[in-house]
Amino acid sequence: MPKIDPVEAQTLWSVAEEMADAAGAAILPHFRSDSLNAENKLTSGFDPVTVADRAGETAMREVLARRRPDDGILGEEHGTVEGTTGLTWVLDPIDGTRGFISGTPTWGVLIAVADDTGPILGIVDQPYTQERFSGGLGRAEWTGPNRKGPLRTTSTTRLADATLYSTFPEIGSEAQRAAFQNVVKDVKLTRYGCDCYAYALLAIGQIDLVIEAGLNAYDIQGPIAVIEAGGGVVTDWDGNPAHNGGTALAAATPELHAAAMAKLKEV
Amino acid sequence: MPKIDPVEAQTLWSVAEEMADAAGAAILPHFRSDSLNAENKLTSGFDPVTVADRAGETAMREVLARRRPDDGILGEEHGTVEGTTGLTWVLDPIDGTRGFISGTPTWGVLIAVADDTGPILGIVDQPYTQERFSGGLGRAEWTGPNRKGPLRTTSTTRLADATLYSTFPEIGSEAQRAAFQNVVKDVKLTRYGCDCYAYALLAIGQIDLVIEAGLNAYDIQGPIAVIEAGGGVVTDWDGNPAHNGGTALAAATPELHAAAMAKLKEV
Repeated sequence: MPKIDPVEAQTLWSVAEEMADAAGAAILPHFRSDSLNAENKLTSGFDPVTVADRAGETAMREVLARRRPDDGILGEEHGTVEGTTGLTWVLDPIDGTRGFISGTPTWGVLIAVADDTGPILGIVDQPYTQERFSGGLGRAEWTGPNRKGPLRTTSTTRLADATLYSTFPEIGSEAQRAAFQNVVKDVKLTRYGCDCYAYALLAIGQIDLVIEAGLNAYDIQGPIAVIEAGGGVVTDWDGNPAHNGGTALAAATPELHAAAMAKLKEV
Repeated sequence: MPKIDPVEAQTLWSVAEEMADAAGAAILPHFRSDSLNAENKLTSGFDPVTVADRAGETAMREVLARRRPDDGILGEEHGTVEGTTGLTWVLDPIDGTRGFISGTPTWGVLIAVADDTGPILGIVDQPYTQERFSGGLGRAEWTGPNRKGPLRTTSTTRLADATLYSTFPEIGSEAQRAAFQNVVKDVKLTRYGCDCYAYALLAIGQIDLVIEAGLNAYDIQGPIAVIEAGGGVVTDWDGNPAHNGGTALAAATPELHAAAMAKLKEV
């Protein structure tokens, strides 16, 4: 694991922010554009990938080629580059492409820097609302138009007091859906539809739980760093590290995390 | 039905915009505020009403008391005022209070002016993203930060090409849910969670269908005027006027509306 001193941390944040700016600039002209043309990435199912998605990742890789050419890259659209520094940039130019093509402002640009232990820096960026959630390497803050604040999760410990988000009710496999529903029945409020934006809402203390399945590494590494910086806990549904993808259970407190995991395992 | 000449239309739009500005100014300080304290309005179920909700409606009524004292008012929070002009202002200060208390930017301020035929002017306003969707009395436009555009629904006519939104999957009664699911299985994509923002996305041609149940008049009158101004069709699930609340089926085209209604009635 490479040691990150304060100067190196500052450099990594500067690069990450330049990447987020570049991705937003590449993506925004396509948002709500008439010519946006979703393709089917998978032969079965509906997984739209747009010109915007690819343009966003290309813009981020251009920043890395110039400023961090020796780091590794794991991106959704353009594959993997091995690095030599022990650090890997994990990129999802548009998390929530279904939301993106529907015109909602709840998709996001996800950026993480990972070492061999997982993500150490993360950004969840929403270019349309101009909100940026930044966590790791000493940083825990969000900024918006004329607003900013700390990342700080709620102190909620009981399911009965918790607001739960997930992207859609048809979560994962049949068994995963049953486990998820076993949590749903005990929480105060369940809402759907926010993609990565839900992780940001958890990190700033607006909601208490996010539970998802079927994730890729690039879907979750940015959110993990942001939520952990705000004091939250993220693992997979078995309590193991979530940064390689699969399932994710993100909670405001360790107590709430344990309560939700118990419900997931009960079924 | 009072006749609205162009001068009167301009006055009504001016009042409506002043009301939307006033509501946003009253509500925004409470959005994502630590002190926001949701109460339970209903003895059963979770229907949070906040200080922000009441402040927003009070701000709108103050504008009406000054500028349109003889019109009627139907509001969510502060009840009904009978008018003498034949026009009624229909107000929902925060449509989507569950989204509001979760910190999502998909709640909205809803304003309509109705005569005895239904809404003739409507606004869906999102103060946090600074987006305003305005339809009726010759107007069909939306504005956002550095952006604007027309209200114009898609030309989608087939369910297989349609993106459907609804606020939550537990829509209405058991029978209503079954009918809704009969549409879900035939559309291209179903998403949840946007409250009134989904109607705005339909009006600007980003999605194709919104289906909901359990609505009040103030939940739907603003959206009806906005969607109709964009060329869409809104009725209840039986094809009757939706402006008194209950169910709503909003579609981009008459053909898509008919196809969805057939599926709702099939079950």
